[in-house]
Amino acid sequence: MQTWEAVTSRRNVRSFTEQQIGSEDLHRILEAGRRAPSSRNLQPWDFVVVTDRAELQELSKVWVGAGHVAGAATAIALIIGPAEEPGHRDEFDLGQATMAMMITAADAGIGSAHSAVGDQDLASQLLGLPADHSCAYLISLGYPADRPLAPITRPDRRPFDEVVHWGRW
Amino acid sequence: MQTWEAVTSRRNVRSFTEQQIGSEDLHRILEAGRRAPSSRNLQPWDFVVVTDRAELQELSKVWVGAGHVAGAATAIALIIGPAEEPGHRDEFDLGQATMAMMITAADAGIGSAHSAVGDQDLASQLLGLPADHSCAYLISLGYPADRPLAPITRPDRRPFDEVVHWGRW
Repeated sequence: MQTWEAVTSRRNVRSFTEQQIGSEDLHRILEAGRRAPSSRNLQPWDFVVVTDRAELQELSKVWVGAGHVAGAATAIALIIGPAEEPGHRDEFDLGQATMAMMITAADAGIGSAHSAVGDQDLASQLLGLPADHSCAYLISLGYPADRPLAPITRPDRRPFDEVVHWGRW
Repeated sequence: MQTWEAVTSRRNVRSFTEQQIGSEDLHRILEAGRRAPSSRNLQPWDFVVVTDRAELQELSKVWVGAGHVAGAATAIALIIGPAEEPGHRDEFDLGQATMAMMITAADAGIGSAHSAVGDQDLASQLLGLPADHSCAYLISLGYPADRPLAPITRPDRRPFDEVVHWGRW
């Protein structure tokens, strides 16, 4: 798929078919995340890949907005360690890695949605995390139950001319 | 360009040729950012586009790591308003928008690099920002001075099998 088609086809998908994600596609999605840039190339992330249905259902309980994880073909848990320094760089970098994975998923016709994590104890127990690590986000992946991904012509976003300023604000 | 080629060709480029970025490419890069997902679709960003050489040179002084802005063909300043609620969602969302723009730039053979902003007073004065807004990041764009973008076969990253865990940590 052409890049622009993948970028414009990506949308939040929260309901998935039973179809599994092929290992080649999944590897490529994870590789896109691994390659993402990060502050001082710290790569503050680890990815835990969950495909077991029972585990996905349990994981979906970590946050009110994580319901879509229960029916996902695969979830990728974004894990971070103890912050090396104050600041929000980890969050920015996780956002970059997430977007790289979602665009790469869209390229293969795979839908995605992400969720924050509220119950860190539950997430940590389910994922077997080291004590000083936490689960920052969950990314659900799967083939859309409603309609295939296709370029979105009128995205639900603020108008271009409101968001973009030329030269100065 | 195919999506995977764009994803794997993106790299930090900090030295640029004099070639300007065509308006169609620039529009597409900005549109990719506008379309990025955000928490509760808040779209907490505004983008200020800078192409004037003198302004780029002044902007490059806002942070020790922003030197590449001086020679960029274009810089996109990511602006955020007052935080609506505690938490790091804005940072995560800015990371998503940034990655969408950088991959879209790579698709057109355009290199990119980003920088944090230290001197908010200077950034605010140069960009004419409202008093309650700040410049979170700068993205430099331009054609690479050294070598064209091409898929990177051995990225400088932690090994795949170290980053990716299957089922549990």
